[in-house]
Amino acid sequence: MTHAKFANDAEIIEFVLTNTELFTDTSALRVEEIGDGNINFVYRITNDQKSVIVKQALPYVRIIGEGWPLSLDRIRIEAQCLKEEGTWAAEYVPVVYYFDQARSAFIMEDIGDHENLRHALIARRPLPELGRHLGEFLAESLFHTSDFYLDTYQKKAAVADYINPDLCKITEELFFWDPFCDHERNSVNPPLQEAAQALWQDDLLKVEAAKLKYHFMNDAQALLHADLHAGSVFVKADGTKVIDPEFAFYGPMSFDIGSIIGNLLINFSGQLGLEGDLDEKQAYREFLLTQIDNLWSTFVMRFKALVSKKCKDPVFSAAAFVDAFIAQTWHESMGYAGTEIIRRTIGLAHVADLDSIEDINTRAVSEKFALDLGSALIKQRQDIKSPQVLKALVQAI
Amino acid sequence: MTHAKFANDAEIIEFVLTNTELFTDTSALRVEEIGDGNINFVYRITNDQKSVIVKQALPYVRIIGEGWPLSLDRIRIEAQCLKEEGTWAAEYVPVVYYFDQARSAFIMEDIGDHENLRHALIARRPLPELGRHLGEFLAESLFHTSDFYLDTYQKKAAVADYINPDLCKITEELFFWDPFCDHERNSVNPPLQEAAQALWQDDLLKVEAAKLKYHFMNDAQALLHADLHAGSVFVKADGTKVIDPEFAFYGPMSFDIGSIIGNLLINFSGQLGLEGDLDEKQAYREFLLTQIDNLWSTFVMRFKALVSKKCKDPVFSAAAFVDAFIAQTWHESMGYAGTEIIRRTIGLAHVADLDSIEDINTRAVSEKFALDLGSALIKQRQDIKSPQVLKALVQAI
Repeated sequence: MTHAKFANDAEIIEFVLTNTELFTDTSALRVEEIGDGNINFVYRITNDQKSVIVKQALPYVRIIGEGWPLSLDRIRIEAQCLKEEGTWAAEYVPVVYYFDQARSAFIMEDIGDHENLRHALIARRPLPELGRHLGEFLAESLFHTSDFYLDTYQKKAAVADYINPDLCKITEELFFWDPFCDHERNSVNPPLQEAAQALWQDDLLKVEAAKLKYHFMNDAQALLHADLHAGSVFVKADGTKVIDPEFAFYGPMSFDIGSIIGNLLINFSGQLGLEGDLDEKQAYREFLLTQIDNLWSTFVMRFKALVSKKCKDPVFSAAAFVDAFIAQTWHESMGYAGTEIIRRTIGLAHVADLDSIEDINTRAVSEKFALDLGSALIKQRQDIKSPQVLKALVQAI
Repeated sequence: MTHAKFANDAEIIEFVLTNTELFTDTSALRVEEIGDGNINFVYRITNDQKSVIVKQALPYVRIIGEGWPLSLDRIRIEAQCLKEEGTWAAEYVPVVYYFDQARSAFIMEDIGDHENLRHALIARRPLPELGRHLGEFLAESLFHTSDFYLDTYQKKAAVADYINPDLCKITEELFFWDPFCDHERNSVNPPLQEAAQALWQDDLLKVEAAKLKYHFMNDAQALLHADLHAGSVFVKADGTKVIDPEFAFYGPMSFDIGSIIGNLLINFSGQLGLEGDLDEKQAYREFLLTQIDNLWSTFVMRFKALVSKKCKDPVFSAAAFVDAFIAQTWHESMGYAGTEIIRRTIGLAHVADLDSIEDINTRAVSEKFALDLGSALIKQRQDIKSPQVLKALVQAI
């Protein structure tokens, strides 16, 4: 298949002008490449008054080249998932204006006035609405794509439509295999080596991580974002946007919930090692735990309200079933938070919440905390009954 | 869509002669319609020396007519599933010679020397290999279509290929909804009315049945037969064949295992009310429990052997994970055995193991036993650790 990569800025501008009516004054349009990712190309097209984003996928991983092919279907899935999320949680995703299969590209709203959540957390920004926004986004997007809302025909067709093996395979390996053994793709801070070795010998942990992997691969509950780390969330004082769902597929709701909670806990783990005043750090750790609490209580409230109002299946709308489902989803979310924390600490893809701690010994203290927390979340997930129990666990480590 | 139903015997014979080379002497061929089912047409084409079967689907339910449409895709799924099972468990399924999409028909081996298992159980035939055969069939067909064997691309493509919503919907309603409420489709023996009413008020039972429904709809572990009741199994003294997988889809392994165990337990429930000598009945009940034990121990042994030999995923081949997976599969199987028993006792589709007990009060005694057993299996499934614990439970009721 020929891949129609944009050859120059003029082609990108032409693509936007042909397929949208966003610009009337076209004389001053210019293009910047803004993608900080490793996989795709992202362009901002702007005339200083207005701007839009064009995202284009290649049939391989951008930074590796043709040696690592990657299905172009991911960009269809990403655009389609953003539109689906936009139907139910418009406030929390950019608008998609146009998708072009032949170009493997789509045009969407520019959210350039937002900041990457990971940077915001490291800078200890006050984001009092963060947990509520994420809880609403998760409840709306997960409920409306599950058997709680869709009829059995719609649901099964959607499962088939979002089959996404190339991207799932990355998660299957990088979350659930590499970090639990001495894998060549791992990256371990030297002073943390001993703790990593101990983790690789922890058979109980490995069997529990295996269960989470099997569940991830099999339990097609809802359309997941499936890459919901802090780098996929953008924030400003009063707003939150979730982007980049190219990993989207039908999987367990707890994977999305656990991934983002895991990212808040990674930031928690890094706080004491990051620059700044100790009181500020302690206060920000409290803030993070409060946001997890807000996220979960918002999710529960909104999900239950949606079930009451919109679930047509008499079996699944029974209050006792909904309560049991939500409780189990929380337990599993703790497990996936744990796998996210561990893979970001000793796996291939690290994050700045830990890696920007310059002194390797100071960093190792935060990393050791992260490993202990991640392991406890995985092994004890069925005993963690609520965000309060999670808080107690975090404080005990 | 025009449906090309065979207009006469000559067309059926022509279909077999054109698409197989089974018959050389074609002068004496004749056709009998042998389908005792309500949905499809089944023909035997024979010349007294040899015979084959032609099965044809209509785009609606045969006994209802065009008022109940049913996707023709089910016959593609049935033929394809039989071939897949034949690859791994050839001994236990008829050979498929030819499938014709346009005709919605396929040609397969005649297993007319076998008897329907339900009739065989009611007649108390000695079938000492039954449990072993079923255990081998289940282990081979489920292992080879799961993530324990397939790579992630093959598995996900297979999930999409076997999406089968029309047939799944029947199960979702008839197993998991109707029998747990006072539904107009139910059929309740008048002396059992009080017990049925009590069951419909059992909130704990209903929430556990809801969990099993959700799991059935979401957990795409393996290619299931998905209608594995005693009427889908045919036996002779030294052989077992499993037919009619038109409900096949990717679901939890425990649904197949539980369905067939449930059918053995339904026969167990009916034994005392059926005709015959008390000692014979008691001995046959013992035989049934032994076969359940054999089925499960064979399944476990074969499944583990297959994992050791063929599982390439290092996470899923770990012994501790396999043990945990198998234990959980057993627990869930107990739950699905329970839903099968209950829906066959008070739901729409009854079975001769209970319904052929002529006196309605005698029948109600067996049916009450079945309801109590089914409820206990669903509610206590996590406590039933083994076939021995199941035996103790059965004896306690």
